Amino acid sequence: MALIVQKYGGTSVGTPERIRNVARRVARWRSQGNDLVVVVSAMTGETDRLLGLAREVSPQPLGRELDVVLSTGEQVTIGLLCMALEDLGVKARSYTGAQVRIVTDSAFTKARILRIDEERMRQDLAEGNVVVVAGFQGVDDKGNITTLGRGGSDTTGVALAAALKADECQIFTDVDGVYTTDPRIVPEARRLKTITFEEMLEMASLGSKVLQIRSVEFAGKYRVRLRVLSSFEEQEGEGTLITFEEDEHMEQALISGIAFNRGEAKVTVLGVPDKPGIAYQIVDPIAEANIDVDMIVQNVSVDGTTDFSFTVSQADLKQTLDILRGLQPALGARDIMGDDKIAKIGLVGVGMRSHVGVASKMFRTLSEEGINIQMISTSEIKISVVIDEKYMELAVRVLHRAFELDQPV
Amino acid sequence: MALIVQKYGGTSVGTPERIRNVARRVARWRSQGNDLVVVVSAMTGETDRLLGLAREVSPQPLGRELDVVLSTGEQVTIGLLCMALEDLGVKARSYTGAQVRIVTDSAFTKARILRIDEERMRQDLAEGNVVVVAGFQGVDDKGNITTLGRGGSDTTGVALAAALKADECQIFTDVDGVYTTDPRIVPEARRLKTITFEEMLEMASLGSKVLQIRSVEFAGKYRVRLRVLSSFEEQEGEGTLITFEEDEHMEQALISGIAFNRGEAKVTVLGVPDKPGIAYQIVDPIAEANIDVDMIVQNVSVDGTTDFSFTVSQADLKQTLDILRGLQPALGARDIMGDDKIAKIGLVGVGMRSHVGVASKMFRTLSEEGINIQMISTSEIKISVVIDEKYMELAVRVLHRAFELDQPV
Repeated sequence: MALIVQKYGGTSVGTPERIRNVARRVARWRSQGNDLVVVVSAMTGETDRLLGLAREVSPQPLGRELDVVLSTGEQVTIGLLCMALEDLGVKARSYTGAQVRIVTDSAFTKARILRIDEERMRQDLAEGNVVVVAGFQGVDDKGNITTLGRGGSDTTGVALAAALKADECQIFTDVDGVYTTDPRIVPEARRLKTITFEEMLEMASLGSKVLQIRSVEFAGKYRVRLRVLSSFEEQEGEGTLITFEEDEHMEQALISGIAFNRGEAKVTVLGVPDKPGIAYQIVDPIAEANIDVDMIVQNVSVDGTTDFSFTVSQADLKQTLDILRGLQPALGARDIMGDDKIAKIGLVGVGMRSHVGVASKMFRTLSEEGINIQMISTSEIKISVVIDEKYMELAVRVLHRAFELDQPV
Repeated sequence: MALIVQKYGGTSVGTPERIRNVARRVARWRSQGNDLVVVVSAMTGETDRLLGLAREVSPQPLGRELDVVLSTGEQVTIGLLCMALEDLGVKARSYTGAQVRIVTDSAFTKARILRIDEERMRQDLAEGNVVVVAGFQGVDDKGNITTLGRGGSDTTGVALAAALKADECQIFTDVDGVYTTDPRIVPEARRLKTITFEEMLEMASLGSKVLQIRSVEFAGKYRVRLRVLSSFEEQEGEGTLITFEEDEHMEQALISGIAFNRGEAKVTVLGVPDKPGIAYQIVDPIAEANIDVDMIVQNVSVDGTTDFSFTVSQADLKQTLDILRGLQPALGARDIMGDDKIAKIGLVGVGMRSHVGVASKMFRTLSEEGINIQMISTSEIKISVVIDEKYMELAVRVLHRAFELDQPV
């Protein structure tokens, strides 16, 4: 008998009928003798509806109060799922993040989980209940409701699996696993049976959208066995297992997948003096404002000045530019520029570590299509480029073909 | 500087614009130097929407989980109102029932408040915040979310006023006070400047709908000064003050108002043996099922058997009949009958205590219109009758005229 944490996203619980479907799936796993903790998101569209209400009331809703409003989305789902489970004769109990309790810091709208009191869940499980927990939310030490930010339900699932030392954390979504790239762009994209955590991290941060990055970090840190499965197939397949060890990684391809993201914007600080501490002076105020900075590139200096570029989410562009323009005199920068018409594309694979030539093949493939590269950043297992947004689909397709990702390994 | 608890109902916070209106009203009271605790309901239609979702998922939603779902309605409103207040420069903090904490028993969907921890609110008030609390909800000793049942937000307001020893509890609603009867039925109905608690209790229990009965009981028990005001007038008037003492009651009329209710059903247990304990045997199983029994009438016995009648809410009729039919052999009853085509009409007034003839005038007025009386029940300050539903409006109109309620005292 295994202890399994399952997480169902917004589309999986998007209607009363789908909630009953999820209940049937949970009941089947339960009837096989498993102990189950189920994490759910808000029903599709509900978070946006609540956000819309908040914006109708206030142009800039306060974080604390926004979390009070947004957290109701998941709370509705946990209640509804428990009703559906009980109708199937499955004992179930719902918990909000505050009830569990999932204790977070007080960074409203993007809180981080600090600890989880799992005592109550264990007791419920021992009494034969399925435990249903609201994703995306927690409570700070003062009892304020917090949310983990968009996609945070995955993190809740993994964090609960870690706290409970669950045998597996299953993320049910509208795809049946992790693909070499988005099949909507490249129809030949293949499902990966396994992928390493490192690769998954790079895939997630580049926006492959299957799992939220923080949940993968969590899974890696606490060694949670993570599996991505489809909630829309009648009988779920094996999905994609995210492994810790490279030797578990059966498909030792050169690269595993191509991730991409058009949700970011590029910020460039032009002509700053190339002296120690300048990167810190630029990035620290952004981080202080709780804005996540992604790809950071600084080139060698010319005439004692350098250009510093990074990407942020498009939603944060305006605030980022406002902060930097306020700092412009202090930084001694010539200009601050922002561009949200960009796309980021990344080749990911533990295999590339031991292979030269991946970068040059990538650059050649793009140049053959006349696609200009605006920024380049590399790590051990990833090469990322920023290009003009309009070439994104084309770039992904030609790279997928060039690296033969459509061929079984 | 007064400490005032204000309660705004669902229509008062029915849209983002109305929420901003409420915020302006609260800001005005605050700018006059008052400390404010504001209780809000769910936005109009929201509770019904949530109830609809629950019923789509499950034909008979569980109480515990239904409360988890329903309580989100008020939680959304508290967050939105705080955002609107902060936009006006008014410091505000929202609390769910569980956060306050408003501790209730565990009777899901119709819980009763046991105690309120007011420490945190006092601290917030001392720091200059308006405290915004979700009505209608609480938390039991095990941390389960509970709701107080429909209209429970009034009770929350009064209970908070009692716990905080507030100077006044103001119930803002879509009418500007308590009227001699419903102006939609009798256009000449007058607003009462004051009404005693006893009268208000009788008015509420008979369905005058201005205040929920439990809130009035609470107010009387804890001596909370209660005022009903309109949230739709730009500047609220004085509304209707609900007084403790009869000598405060300036309008010493024979009767104060006419209440009515067509939401109930009549249940009759025919031909039970007239022996000690029979009333208990009938009513106790109903009460055990958490069904509220209202008007109870038992007539003198004939041939050792008697007929026992009472009213319940129409929603509870089927369950009540099921329970009684199961008990029929044990009770030795000849038959169990139910009828939901009834209306209840009540004359209320502390003045009638010292006057004979109110009952006879009432019965004569009804008989002159050919309206048959099915049940009669009287108390010190109330005479209630059950009649055929179709005569309800007519009966209220002729009684209002007969007792000259349209004339100023």
